[in-house]
Amino acid sequence: MKLLEDRIRKDGTVRNCNILKVDSFLNHQLDVTLLDELGKEFYRLFKDEGVTKILTIESSGIAIAMSAAREFRIPAVFAKKNRTKNIEGEVYSAAVESFTSGITYTVIISKKFLNADDRVLIIDDFLAQGQALKGLVGMVEAAGATVVGCGIAIEKGFQDGGKTLRDQGYRVESLAIVESMDPENGIVFRN
Amino acid sequence: MKLLEDRIRKDGTVRNCNILKVDSFLNHQLDVTLLDELGKEFYRLFKDEGVTKILTIESSGIAIAMSAAREFRIPAVFAKKNRTKNIEGEVYSAAVESFTSGITYTVIISKKFLNADDRVLIIDDFLAQGQALKGLVGMVEAAGATVVGCGIAIEKGFQDGGKTLRDQGYRVESLAIVESMDPENGIVFRN
Repeated sequence: MKLLEDRIRKDGTVRNCNILKVDSFLNHQLDVTLLDELGKEFYRLFKDEGVTKILTIESSGIAIAMSAAREFRIPAVFAKKNRTKNIEGEVYSAAVESFTSGITYTVIISKKFLNADDRVLIIDDFLAQGQALKGLVGMVEAAGATVVGCGIAIEKGFQDGGKTLRDQGYRVESLAIVESMDPENGIVFRN
Repeated sequence: MKLLEDRIRKDGTVRNCNILKVDSFLNHQLDVTLLDELGKEFYRLFKDEGVTKILTIESSGIAIAMSAAREFRIPAVFAKKNRTKNIEGEVYSAAVESFTSGITYTVIISKKFLNADDRVLIIDDFLAQGQALKGLVGMVEAAGATVVGCGIAIEKGFQDGGKTLRDQGYRVESLAIVESMDPENGIVFRN
């Protein structure tokens, strides 16, 4: 998606060969207009799939998930990192290691919000090693629901999360795929 | 705001005299249509204040902040609970104790995203003891920026966060104020 690639080139910062900072528009400060365009693109890509629910994981996925859910006119659900005593009843859970922080979290979704007849589009801001997505996919399938696909803003194509999920048969649509990057030469996007 | 009060009565659950669960529409599953109405109401209340930025705190505030920022056509920024190594440069920080979990976090905002000429509307889903709001207010003022006010979805009027902030001169607009609640007698809203 040219709009997103252009914005990454303009405002993203490559800190090293692994870390791309997009905190001025995607995951700390939020450019609502841009996010809404991403939501529209996810709708265009998945509108014929009978999606009933958008699923993401806190925190950075929430804003994009909201923009997508608005287009589909369906609810968004975000999986929670388990640090609260204020979740009632039974939950689906998964262990997810954060690529960014190196910390492993348990993430949970209340069973109330995933049903066997749900057709779920999973949305997230980044796909690198795919730990978060795999955790979300596992919880959707534990509910007996269907994973329609994964809609990602930025995929790091040089890490294997996207390949692994696609090899397993999941539809993964990433709006910008970074083929390579480094602070001196900048970013090369996959065509 | 009658729309929100009605929804809380319909879908909220009072677990005890302190905990009101609204996770089916506000902070786990997200009803985008409702959240957009809250965003419009915050715009109506603060539209003449020259707001330049919406500020919230992850995670539950992000969705409402997005809906408000869309109305104002300005960016939203969310303060991050400090668990990542992926924040560059200098940050404003505050210690915030979560009423729900009992845990104290350090929350941070990159200095890039708060400027002295910003007029900031702080948005959050709940106001109880006001720890999160006070932390956010402190960071805005540390930046030399102006707190235009606080827009809250649900205030627990029987806790003192709202009173303390109003007594300090801050404008706090809560769309639903719970005067009292218990599992047997339900919820009484402040008129």
